[in-house]
Amino acid sequence: MEISMAINLLLFLCLIPFSFFVCNGVVIVPSYAAAAHRTLEHRGGALYETRYFMQTLDHFNYKPDGYMQFRQKYLVNDSFWEGRGAPIFVYAGNEGSIELFADNTGFMFDVAPSFKALLVFIEHRYYGESLPFGDVGNSSTLGYLSTTQALADFATLITDLKKNLSSEHSPVVAFGGSYGGMLAAWFRLKYPHVVIGSVASSAPILQFDDLVSPYTFIDIVTNDFKSESESCFKTIKNSWKEMDDTLRQPGGPQKLAKAFKLCRGAIPEYVPGWINSAFIYGAMTDYPTASNFLTPLPAFPVKQMCKAIDNPTAGNDTLSRLYAAMNIYYNYTGTESCFDLDSGSRIGFDSWDFQSCTEMILIEGGCRNESMFPAETYDYQKQLAYCKEAYKISPRPHWITTEFGGHDIKRVLKRFGSNIIFFNGLRDPWSGGGVLKSINPSLIAIVAPQGAHHVDLRFATEQDPVWLRNVRRKEIQIISKWLKQYYED
Amino acid sequence: MEISMAINLLLFLCLIPFSFFVCNGVVIVPSYAAAAHRTLEHRGGALYETRYFMQTLDHFNYKPDGYMQFRQKYLVNDSFWEGRGAPIFVYAGNEGSIELFADNTGFMFDVAPSFKALLVFIEHRYYGESLPFGDVGNSSTLGYLSTTQALADFATLITDLKKNLSSEHSPVVAFGGSYGGMLAAWFRLKYPHVVIGSVASSAPILQFDDLVSPYTFIDIVTNDFKSESESCFKTIKNSWKEMDDTLRQPGGPQKLAKAFKLCRGAIPEYVPGWINSAFIYGAMTDYPTASNFLTPLPAFPVKQMCKAIDNPTAGNDTLSRLYAAMNIYYNYTGTESCFDLDSGSRIGFDSWDFQSCTEMILIEGGCRNESMFPAETYDYQKQLAYCKEAYKISPRPHWITTEFGGHDIKRVLKRFGSNIIFFNGLRDPWSGGGVLKSINPSLIAIVAPQGAHHVDLRFATEQDPVWLRNVRRKEIQIISKWLKQYYED
Repeated sequence: MEISMAINLLLFLCLIPFSFFVCNGVVIVPSYAAAAHRTLEHRGGALYETRYFMQTLDHFNYKPDGYMQFRQKYLVNDSFWEGRGAPIFVYAGNEGSIELFADNTGFMFDVAPSFKALLVFIEHRYYGESLPFGDVGNSSTLGYLSTTQALADFATLITDLKKNLSSEHSPVVAFGGSYGGMLAAWFRLKYPHVVIGSVASSAPILQFDDLVSPYTFIDIVTNDFKSESESCFKTIKNSWKEMDDTLRQPGGPQKLAKAFKLCRGAIPEYVPGWINSAFIYGAMTDYPTASNFLTPLPAFPVKQMCKAIDNPTAGNDTLSRLYAAMNIYYNYTGTESCFDLDSGSRIGFDSWDFQSCTEMILIEGGCRNESMFPAETYDYQKQLAYCKEAYKISPRPHWITTEFGGHDIKRVLKRFGSNIIFFNGLRDPWSGGGVLKSINPSLIAIVAPQGAHHVDLRFATEQDPVWLRNVRRKEIQIISKWLKQYYED
Repeated sequence: MEISMAINLLLFLCLIPFSFFVCNGVVIVPSYAAAAHRTLEHRGGALYETRYFMQTLDHFNYKPDGYMQFRQKYLVNDSFWEGRGAPIFVYAGNEGSIELFADNTGFMFDVAPSFKALLVFIEHRYYGESLPFGDVGNSSTLGYLSTTQALADFATLITDLKKNLSSEHSPVVAFGGSYGGMLAAWFRLKYPHVVIGSVASSAPILQFDDLVSPYTFIDIVTNDFKSESESCFKTIKNSWKEMDDTLRQPGGPQKLAKAFKLCRGAIPEYVPGWINSAFIYGAMTDYPTASNFLTPLPAFPVKQMCKAIDNPTAGNDTLSRLYAAMNIYYNYTGTESCFDLDSGSRIGFDSWDFQSCTEMILIEGGCRNESMFPAETYDYQKQLAYCKEAYKISPRPHWITTEFGGHDIKRVLKRFGSNIIFFNGLRDPWSGGGVLKSINPSLIAIVAPQGAHHVDLRFATEQDPVWLRNVRRKEIQIISKWLKQYYED
């Protein structure tokens, strides 16, 4: 009970798209949903129309309650489509409202005209508006939330859509980033009859079981900051004890509240977790151009945060330096006069939290002594205890590798499977669980040393560096090849 | 209600491993289970030991009730195994007790010594002893019975077994015949990380949806008999009306009872369905050597039945001729003094009937005018009505092709997937839904014009014809190649 309470109190801090234990003991859960209200207005006009599909609740079970249907949302743009037989590009929705992913997957819009492709973005069950039991849940109603059900949703919806369009022979290419990238990769592997190929961007399909060290994720975050400046790294590394000491002192919490310009009512004890999130999300979204994915950010936010730490404009002490960095991550637009530490409002129940308590047990969160965060041993038992408390169920930590594989992937897929692009940017902490080497001539890894989380899928801009243009060019060439082969076959 | 009653009354007749409507309107359901009590005593001694695995009830759903476990039976023979790292050959159990399939898959025993392989035969959930809810069922308890759950059972059990044997790197090859063959093929396609290759024998994976004509199955049965003798075909074709007329006459049922030596209490009206079954099963098991799969039979049972019809030893009339044929199919051992028409005792609830009412909607059962049975238009609505009545649920006739594919299979798998042998014997009525042409260099079709239902998987005998020896030799060569490649990789 105690654990659960403690964790729940901290939930409102959280922003990270995958739940995990960070090194100061704060559990971080996703809030892709939080940013989903943003639209593409900056592009001038609606980029898609909204549709709904009556989806089967349980594809793998014939109990009467599994026959229930729910409204699954999907977005369509047919303005570039050449019609019957022409390609269909599908985004495999992940843990949030589908609009967020459509808005941040400009690559599909950018390439659709030349491929004359129909664009479809499918919302993942239990996110956004695609809520089988509405905006409430418990472990009985949440039980139908699983990756395999989500993939079967995609297969069912796409098959039906093609039939309705009388375009059964249209080749379908799947796209996805992050968890959506995992789904895209697994979708091609499990449903080759539905998709001819997949672009799996920043998909940590090897972040499970014993496939990766639980320290890799934070190692990469640390390296990102260290690579910008050794002094920045040191300031951050030393700050945790300083904050901890401050909080323990009489008047310490008030001091922290003042230093970080907390709004009235914000809890100073949450400051370390809030800072932790900014560093981790900053590393994930360390894009080479200004962006507005999880929050508005300048180009190269890690560099900018380190600059603020190394060269503070107001105050030379640690707290002032950290404040300056937070002011970049949480207030780049300059509209915040204080911080309430609740930058992600929670929408609906905790669907991702539930997924991370059942099968999506991503292995990360441990911090070595050398990391920029306080050292912490990876502790699976802590998660297990939390999940049992919160949902009364035991996680199945080996399920993902049993269902989708991962062990010995090079040998397993060398002579099996085709047409997947695995993109990873090495500044992205999730790249540690990505496929970084090509498996065979058509299971291709594209690795960008300077890239961050699914940067390739973003709208092209004038400011894009050459390496990013080259990545996208290569992806377009590969997709073209898949389509050419399909039509030739 | 009426339909259900009528069908249920006839259930005890039934023997066919796949439920379908035969042309005289009788529903046939499987009774692989019925033959399962037989052991391999003729081989002298136990060929396997029995083990049990605690299996998860629902792999794809996290509702608390899905966490329930059940005892899944499996058979193991480790007498040929070389130990850690050596191959594991797994039989993908189908709709019956696992012993039946182990006993009739002698090929695995025959080849195990040269491959130094461990043999494992896994029972399918809801058959034999692997009954999650014991020997009773309704649509709530039966709901967990599906192909996807069965495949996940296999993956889970094999992964656990290898771990327990400390032999995670052993290559696993799957084998299966009939429905088990479908499972073996789908298993390789969906779980390439668990099995390096599959031998899918007589697996009608294209017997679904709009992939095959519903008349193909009976066409093949008809051709089998016609190819033996035109007069045999004609006698059978004309017999249905004669039996029908006889049954309508006063004293007709008694006449039929006498002609077919029915036991006291057997219902003469069931004779046509009983004969129908013999012809269909005779065609399926038209093996070139004496066999004892569904029932003891001589070599070439179709030829023998036709000989009995064409050259009857007692009586020249149609009923005497048919009786002579039935005496071969149902009484080859000569031990029956009368026929009670109940040659397959039903074990447990109707698991296969449920599967054929949910997803395993095999498309067959229509009879053209030219067939050896009374003409009957294929009627899906009839099945739908029956299923709704019996289980209060609607079949999902498109699910199998959505989940496993089938449409355009050549194009879909040309550049995806590897290491499956699709064996089909063209005398087998299920071969109409089989993969009869190789899809790519390692998705290989082996077609035996003289072969019957998974004949390749049977124990080798001295009497095996050359073509059958060649089929097996080819299969062994291909499996050897898979293993060689695996160890080299």
